[in-house]
Amino acid sequence: MAQKPSIPKGTRDFSPIEMARRNYIFDTIKRSFKLFGYKHIETPAVENLSTLMGKYGEEGDKLLFKILNSGDFLKNASDEELTERALPKLTNKLCEKGLRYDLTVPFARFVVQHRNELQMPFKRFQIQPVWRADRPQKGRYREFYQCDADVVGSDSLNNEIELLSLIDTVFSDLGIRILIKVNNRKILAGIAETIGESEKIVDITVAIDKIDKIGIENVNSELREKGLSENAIGKLRPILEMQGSNDEKLNLMAEFLKDSETGMKGIEEMRTVLDGFDRLGHESIVEADLSLARGLNYYTGTIIEAKARDVEIGSITGGGRYDNLTGVFGVSGLSGVGISFGADRIYDVMNQLDLYPSSITESVKILFVNFGDSEALQSMKYVRILRSAGISAEIYPDSAKMKKQMTYADSENIPYVGIVGETELNDGTIVVKNMIEGKQETLTLQELIDKFTV
Amino acid sequence: MAQKPSIPKGTRDFSPIEMARRNYIFDTIKRSFKLFGYKHIETPAVENLSTLMGKYGEEGDKLLFKILNSGDFLKNASDEELTERALPKLTNKLCEKGLRYDLTVPFARFVVQHRNELQMPFKRFQIQPVWRADRPQKGRYREFYQCDADVVGSDSLNNEIELLSLIDTVFSDLGIRILIKVNNRKILAGIAETIGESEKIVDITVAIDKIDKIGIENVNSELREKGLSENAIGKLRPILEMQGSNDEKLNLMAEFLKDSETGMKGIEEMRTVLDGFDRLGHESIVEADLSLARGLNYYTGTIIEAKARDVEIGSITGGGRYDNLTGVFGVSGLSGVGISFGADRIYDVMNQLDLYPSSITESVKILFVNFGDSEALQSMKYVRILRSAGISAEIYPDSAKMKKQMTYADSENIPYVGIVGETELNDGTIVVKNMIEGKQETLTLQELIDKFTV
Repeated sequence: MAQKPSIPKGTRDFSPIEMARRNYIFDTIKRSFKLFGYKHIETPAVENLSTLMGKYGEEGDKLLFKILNSGDFLKNASDEELTERALPKLTNKLCEKGLRYDLTVPFARFVVQHRNELQMPFKRFQIQPVWRADRPQKGRYREFYQCDADVVGSDSLNNEIELLSLIDTVFSDLGIRILIKVNNRKILAGIAETIGESEKIVDITVAIDKIDKIGIENVNSELREKGLSENAIGKLRPILEMQGSNDEKLNLMAEFLKDSETGMKGIEEMRTVLDGFDRLGHESIVEADLSLARGLNYYTGTIIEAKARDVEIGSITGGGRYDNLTGVFGVSGLSGVGISFGADRIYDVMNQLDLYPSSITESVKILFVNFGDSEALQSMKYVRILRSAGISAEIYPDSAKMKKQMTYADSENIPYVGIVGETELNDGTIVVKNMIEGKQETLTLQELIDKFTV
Repeated sequence: MAQKPSIPKGTRDFSPIEMARRNYIFDTIKRSFKLFGYKHIETPAVENLSTLMGKYGEEGDKLLFKILNSGDFLKNASDEELTERALPKLTNKLCEKGLRYDLTVPFARFVVQHRNELQMPFKRFQIQPVWRADRPQKGRYREFYQCDADVVGSDSLNNEIELLSLIDTVFSDLGIRILIKVNNRKILAGIAETIGESEKIVDITVAIDKIDKIGIENVNSELREKGLSENAIGKLRPILEMQGSNDEKLNLMAEFLKDSETGMKGIEEMRTVLDGFDRLGHESIVEADLSLARGLNYYTGTIIEAKARDVEIGSITGGGRYDNLTGVFGVSGLSGVGISFGADRIYDVMNQLDLYPSSITESVKILFVNFGDSEALQSMKYVRILRSAGISAEIYPDSAKMKKQMTYADSENIPYVGIVGETELNDGTIVVKNMIEGKQETLTLQELIDKFTV
């Protein structure tokens, strides 16, 4: 009983100051989501395991938090099954529900389940926690927030342009300088096809990604180990050595991919997206980058990633196009494209660069000191009127020593203290002390309201 | 695969219109929490079972959602234990974690765990979902939000007065007329003590609660069945028949309880709270009500409940004082008092009385029709500038038929449609159609911005 309580590893408590910072980030993202016309939805934390299982690969299934059935949770399992300890099979017998792993699968489930009520194209945003039974480490948690914006039911590339614009807007509002990278799965597929190694698309992409770190000869050795032919490795060379502006890269790729229909479609898509974004006059730098391989298993067109330029931390936002978002739930033909803001990494970046406005950690505007019953009653009347005027205010609940009450005001970062002692009670005035400058003045309530509302 | 997906019973998806309404409620509550100086914290959804078990009674333990351990979840259980099927014991071997059941126990855990970082008195608010494996029914869910405000580390009754003031402010902002009931456990204990039946405090309170429904003779029969002596039942009669204003009730009770120290302390506390609230000039009616028995197992002083006056739905907010909030985690001497707003019932009341401002279901201010590549590009430039000016705007992503695009604007409740066709493209103008009045006018972008920002 007396052991100090703790929370499960990989989870976190958020203190008032941490919440003030996180709310600043979430509110900024949410404001942009709304400005762009994405609509807020929420889905339950708890989903049926039949919705979640098989959607994140075999490894993903293991990382799902499963909820023990209520009541007699062993009733579907025989003694034999229990003592055989065939875990995956038993999991299904003991658990019907699990915690959501991301916001994309629940969104696909939502779209299918409510399809008849939804107007297409449907633009939604969702800001909720997700859970993964991953090994916790620095910057990786078992419970963390995702902030997703997706459009479903439209395959126009204008959606991709809008999402890039959204990324630019959010990070510009937050004050984080970013580099956006864009790739297209069709280009990668075209490259693999052109060198005659369609099956090896992932290995090829990984190789492209490593070229800067380990050099072309080491990359080629790795490709050989992966089973690529010498012919294919030779053909790939100009792609691995490719340099230059987005236009130069696209021209070189267009030449390389001229015989691949898929590849040329990818080039056209990427040109449209990059040109469209370019013409809107945003600040963010967008770079065509063939090494961008995130979500290669499910993205079918554009792939997007954003990194902070002033902090080494990896991707802080990512997303892409998936042509068959809802196919897994039996409704095909609905294309989706979306992005996910990584709230926790953005929080780390904001903290490192100290990008928060100082106002966010302010608690109430004024604390009234408590000198005992009659003075407190008068102060509480003032506090009530201040709050009605939209000014946050509180009274110290106990008539404690002055020093204790001032320490509270200090530690809570309260900028003003109001003092109503016997004199003020008789005068109908308030002594207002500025906690930063140390100055004080005597005001009527109306003067105090005016002071805070100009 | 093709079976229509669903969500676990007792859980809910929230559509954009539902979210708009829920956010209106949450934002209103949150604004008051901040005006009053409560500070936002969050705790993880997943807590250690050692934190949760035993805090909600035996029935509560059963209603906890437990999470199956990751990896080999059977490793702590022997074959014998498995085939014996001793469920509670096995639960502990299979599960270390569970979903939080309320926000009070995690708050107590938070206070103990972070005690050295917290300035007392600590006023916190918390708005998060909780989970209970209750049988779902109308208005009762397995996943639902709680909105709690608590103060810990101060036993001043000013905190109770402030909480009543907070309740009044929130419901006045929402437009819900309420009746607040106040009781005090010490008075109930005093009554039980005075009639010589201290052990029967719960039965006595339940009896008081039934008097209006079943009449005094039936209540007395029930008390007899519960084992109260005839003498006690006779003594209780004036309390059961008590009527009148708060003052009249308090006077009658003071006379009745004059020999009970605990009872008289309760009377004094209730007088202070009712008088203090009264003098602040709030609109809400506050009634002393001895039949209020919520949380009788853990509250030690004031008990508070608010009901809507215009909808029959039961309590929409409740709370009270618990003298030993953190004792269960080994830190005694910290008194707490708090209230919890029942977001789901408030939502039902708001829906029934249709109290939402119409503006909350508006999506973007203006939708630009898409007439093809060049027009769309120009529209997207306009959209970007509108958004920079804080005006929500979007473009229909596909150059679909006009009718389809207008249907979208209609169904999404978008008040204005912007049309940039060939003429407007050449003129540098926008045809702006008011979707409610049907009128249209031709404006420059600056005129459009001015229209929306006056």
